[in-house]
Amino acid sequence: MRSLGWTQSEKAIARRIFDDARQAELGEMMAETRRRAAAIRVPADLWYLETYLRESRQQFDRKYDYRYSVLPAVFGLLLSEGRISEAELQGLREDKLSWILREGRAAR
Amino acid sequence: MRSLGWTQSEKAIARRIFDDARQAELGEMMAETRRRAAAIRVPADLWYLETYLRESRQQFDRKYDYRYSVLPAVFGLLLSEGRISEAELQGLREDKLSWILREGRAAR
Repeated sequence: MRSLGWTQSEKAIARRIFDDARQAELGEMMAETRRRAAAIRVPADLWYLETYLRESRQQFDRKYDYRYSVLPAVFGLLLSEGRISEAELQGLREDKLSWILREGRAAR
Repeated sequence: MRSLGWTQSEKAIARRIFDDARQAELGEMMAETRRRAAAIRVPADLWYLETYLRESRQQFDRKYDYRYSVLPAVFGLLLSEGRISEAELQGLREDKLSWILREGRAAR
């Protein structure tokens, strides 16, 4: 894996994008969990909810990895999911931007 | 483990007690899950709910075991938890009743 140097200003931008996306996704998971729980009618719904929570947590933990070595891939995935926009990435240098966009296309 | 013979009439009583207790406990778990989900405020609440569901399911699966060889222990536990009453057990023969009551005292 290539390693890119991150300036202080880039780190600040990356941190904000990362934290905002992470918080937004947690908010969606909380809303979805409340929705599913409110719709519980039969016992099987309990185990579906358990599976949903376990899989969501595992997926979430894999996705939000803040190591700089993998951050372009993380942002590429978030971009492909529509969780962040290219506009938010402005301020990152060209080497990272092109890598992120490439990862985003690959993840689609 | 001792093995007791169960008459058809005893089996019918046992099945009804077992199914009623099982359904009641599932109903409680559904209500508790809806209550906990409605109270979700921070992300950690999601993982507490996941843990609650997993542990409840495991405990439930261990508890509701309808093999006749372990049924007196199952009923003893349900009795100690107040989920069934001695009155409901009437109609079971003395050998099973005394075993169930002994298990119930041991489980307390």
